[in-house]
Order: sequence, then C-alpha cells, then structure tokens
Amino acid sequence: MNEPDQRTVTLLEVAPRDGFQSIREPLPTGEKIAIIEMLVDAGVSRMELGSFVSPKAIPQMADMAEIAAHFRGETDCRMSVLIPNVKGALLALQNGFSDLVFVLSVSEAHNRNNVRQSVAQSLDQLRDVVRETSGSDVALRVDLATSFDCPFDGTVPLDDVRRVFAEAITIAPDAEFALCDTTGRADPMTVGRRFKTMMAEAPDTTVWAFHGHDTFGMGVANALYAYEAGVGIIESAAAGLGGCPFAPGATGNTATEDLHFAFEEGGVATGIDRAILLEAADRIAALPGGKTASHLREVPRGRAIASRPEGNRDAA
Amino acid sequence: MNEPDQRTVTLLEVAPRDGFQSIREPLPTGEKIAIIEMLVDAGVSRMELGSFVSPKAIPQMADMAEIAAHFRGETDCRMSVLIPNVKGALLALQNGFSDLVFVLSVSEAHNRNNVRQSVAQSLDQLRDVVRETSGSDVALRVDLATSFDCPFDGTVPLDDVRRVFAEAITIAPDAEFALCDTTGRADPMTVGRRFKTMMAEAPDTTVWAFHGHDTFGMGVANALYAYEAGVGIIESAAAGLGGCPFAPGATGNTATEDLHFAFEEGGVATGIDRAILLEAADRIAALPGGKTASHLREVPRGRAIASRPEGNRDAA
Repeated sequence: MNEPDQRTVTLLEVAPRDGFQSIREPLPTGEKIAIIEMLVDAGVSRMELGSFVSPKAIPQMADMAEIAAHFRGETDCRMSVLIPNVKGALLALQNGFSDLVFVLSVSEAHNRNNVRQSVAQSLDQLRDVVRETSGSDVALRVDLATSFDCPFDGTVPLDDVRRVFAEAITIAPDAEFALCDTTGRADPMTVGRRFKTMMAEAPDTTVWAFHGHDTFGMGVANALYAYEAGVGIIESAAAGLGGCPFAPGATGNTATEDLHFAFEEGGVATGIDRAILLEAADRIAALPGGKTASHLREVPRGRAIASRPEGNRDAA
Repeated sequence: MNEPDQRTVTLLEVAPRDGFQSIREPLPTGEKIAIIEMLVDAGVSRMELGSFVSPKAIPQMADMAEIAAHFRGETDCRMSVLIPNVKGALLALQNGFSDLVFVLSVSEAHNRNNVRQSVAQSLDQLRDVVRETSGSDVALRVDLATSFDCPFDGTVPLDDVRRVFAEAITIAPDAEFALCDTTGRADPMTVGRRFKTMMAEAPDTTVWAFHGHDTFGMGVANALYAYEAGVGIIESAAAGLGGCPFAPGATGNTATEDLHFAFEEGGVATGIDRAILLEAADRIAALPGGKTASHLREVPRGRAIASRPEGNRDAA
C-alpha cells in the first residue's frame, strides 16, 4: 500500500460554472475573473470555467467569450467548459477551449428540464460532438447527471445508469465520465458501490469523476466513498456556492475547502493551498445573491488552516 | 459478505446529555421527558440520559434524579448516564442507573478543564468506580475524550491515545470504550485508521463506540469510517443539538437524522423510524437557547423520509 502522503486526488473546481450560474443577478465579469485567478493561485489544477449555453437560459454565462479570452493560454490550470449540445461545442472551440464537458441526465424528466431534449436526443448530440471534434486535440468529458437521484422521479436505479453509460461510452470511448449526484441525495455507500459496479463494466482506460452536492449532508462522505472506490477526480465549489433550482432548500456543491480538509488531513495530497483557497471562498461568499455552505469557513481560521504535523499521522 | 439489509448499527442518542447541557437556561423537566419519550418512540435503543455531575458545574443536569425516577424500569431503551468520578457513580447507582459512562480525556489540558483533575487522577477515579461496582450488574463505558484533537493542544498523537487506553483497559477490562472526537476536528481517514489500530491492540471482547461532532463538516464521514473499521455504536444527537464551549463556532454532535439517512439508505439498519425521529428533532430545535445543525431537517420532509425502495439497492 502507498504511504498516505504519496496519494493524490484532483479537486476539480466548479464554482465558476455550477456556482456562478446559481446567482440570478449578472456578476461583473472582472469580479468573476478575479475569483478565478485566486483559485488558480491557490493551486487548483482543473476548473470548470462556465457553460456555452443559450444566454436566454442562463444569463449569468453571457460573458463566457470574454472570460475565455482572458484565460486563453493559461497553463497552470486545465480549464473546461460545459456544453449541452453540438452548438455549444462549436462555440467553445471558437473561443479556444479544447476541454469540453458534455452534460446529459440519466433520468428523462431531468434531462428534458435541464437541456430541453430527450435522453436519446442528447445522445445524438453527443454523437455530433464527437464527430465534430474527432481528430482534433479536444478532451471530452461526459457528465451523467442524476446518476443517483432525480428531483422529479426520486431514486435512480443502477440499471438506468448502466444503460445510459453503455450508450454514451460506445459513442465516446475516449471520454472521461462523471457520475453526478445532482440533487445531493445520494448516500455514501451507494456512491461507493455504484462506482465500483460501473468501473468494473467500463474499459480500463475510462477516467472517472464524481460531482456532488451537500444538500442532505452527505457531500464529504460521498466524495470520500467515490475516492475509495477508485475515483481520482472530485468536483466541488469553493465556499459551497450553488443551489439547485429544482430542489427547494438545496445547498450548493460540496465546499472545496471541506473536501480539502478531509483529504489532506487524511494524507491525500490535492496540490491546493488551504489558506489561499479559503480567501477565495471568502470572496465568493461575499458575492451578492449567492448561497454558500461551508464548514471550514465557520471555524476559527487558524484551526481551519492548521494541518496535522508531518510524522504525526496514523499509518494507513 | 452479508446482504446490505442484514447489517446493523446502533445510533446511541446523546441529545439529552451532550445536547441539553449546551443550553444555558434550565429546560423544564417535563419538556426534557417529553423529548426523551419521543426518541424512545422513534425506536432509539440506547440513550445517554444525562450526567451525575455537580449542579454547580452543569446546572442543566440538576433534575437528573427526577428524570431518572420517571424512566426507571423503561425496558425498550437502554439508558446510561455520564459520570466524571466515583461520587457521580454512587449517585447514579442510588438513582437506579446501572449503565454508567465514565469520561476522561486523552489530553491533560482538556481533562483538567472538563473534569478538573489530571488524567492520572481520572484513572484513579476509574479504579474506584470499578471497585465500587464490581460484582454488581453495572455496565461501564469509558469515553476517551479528545482522542483525535484537543481544543487547547491541537492534534492528539495516536501514541497518547494508546497510552491512556492501555491504562484504562487494565483498570476496566470489561468496559466498552469510545474514542471521542470532542472538537469535531477529526478527519475521516484518521478516524478509520485510529480505530483499526486500537482495535488490533485491544482484547477481542472490547466493544467500541465513536462519538463525533460536525464542526468541521466531517461528522457523517467520520461516523461511516468508524463503522467501516468495525465500530458498531455511533453517538449522535437528534437535530445536531450541542456546541462545545471550548471551540468557538463549534456545532453540536452530528445529527442523528443525518446519520440515519447515511446508514439506512446504504442498507445498514438502525431500528429507528426516521419520520418520528425528525419530529423529535423538530421539538429539540424549538427549544429556546439551543443551537442545532441538521441537514435532513432543512430539506422537504417527504424527501427526507422517503427511503430507497427495497429491490432498488446497489449490491454491497
């Protein structure tokens, strides 16, 4: 077994996408850029910068091209954008993004509500995206939303995830895949088991990610169970910014700083500096109209930042 | 491996002890009794009813004798009381309790602050308690407070826990033992590793419990990692009532309803009815002066109560 301090995890930051889009009033582009820069300074190595979607659907993303222009050529952080269809993919490519996240839901009801088409239509779009980008150096990720629970249909059976994944991986065999707990209602043991099952059925080359929310208080545990199942990429939002419009009372993505504490104190390196991350989280929490949920921000800062001393860790 | 729905865990309810004592103004005894009865109705099988301590130190516990009289002979729920010394043990016995929880801290600084004596003096008191109760049908539990982190000294090294445990188990070889995350600053992987280490060094007959707080957002994950390490008894407080006087901004014990969701949705039975538990949690949250923290109480009640349908669970 590896020494604990040789283990690593990638915390993929989604505050600029899943977080900002939860705020109704448009944020100043400069403020968004400043926050993104703080997150890069903290050592975030992968980030979802936003979405190329209709500005009518999500006005907060109307300045994507401007933000893209600012960060074009950024090398320290791998930046992706979310797309719901081939139109979004082409826009992203035009704006210099070669790291695309295609989203579709496992449940029909959520897919129709989220991207206004059937699951079959989304799979057709995915096919078009793959065709449009084949032969290029585009990296594609497929986010399987509602992989555990749907705000309309309740618990999502494993077999539904299996079926949609099987179709998607046939279309995009080189893609990275994320199982997403869109509502925050997944429970940790099911997260662990579902990833183990899906990983066993997928090609060895498939890269896996987990996207979670903390609505039911399972956010940190769900992420850890995904990690223990072998998932190396965990999505989260600094300050826990977010909130699902379809789940009243829902909180945002699990707070990056809470996950940072859970992983780093356990000896799993993230490459991120907790003090700078918390400063970025403070700035995010100060955004007007934002809804945040963070535990680390609520405790005395010194206690939040202090790390278990080297040589004072329990052996794994 | 067992089928998931054959697995069980005991959620030991501590709201009447660790929760109520966090409220400064004395609560009406009748209200305390009504809440305890609701928790018993929910199916709670073990509960810490209060402490036999100096009413000067914790005025909230001044009505312990009255509460004890009310619940004497209660059979559905095993009820224990916390004691810091042999004087408390004798009081508990006089009041008909044969289920005692002796508390001492691993860290000197916290033990002096919490029970106003050195760790060595606490161990002497434990020796007296064992002598006074030997030959009787008294069940004894030893709570090792600050087994991970101390509000005064920071992270607590494993070797300190080892040393205090070794002395305590020599004195009380038949006792049940709890490692307590008094401040809520333990991280899940360390909780799992520390339990595995301690269990490997303890007699096979030792029964283990975990006591946790959610201050740093690790509450649910810490409990699950303890469970996965083999711990069958998890302490929690309905509504997450509590708050540590020595950790500014600290929240209470991990909410029983959040743990109930985590375990039951994962196929681990608790014997507790979530709907009634949430009603009890609502009543606790309505107590004046109480500080609560619960995720399940914040989501729509129907979604909080609904359980993953039988036959729709991922295999373990």
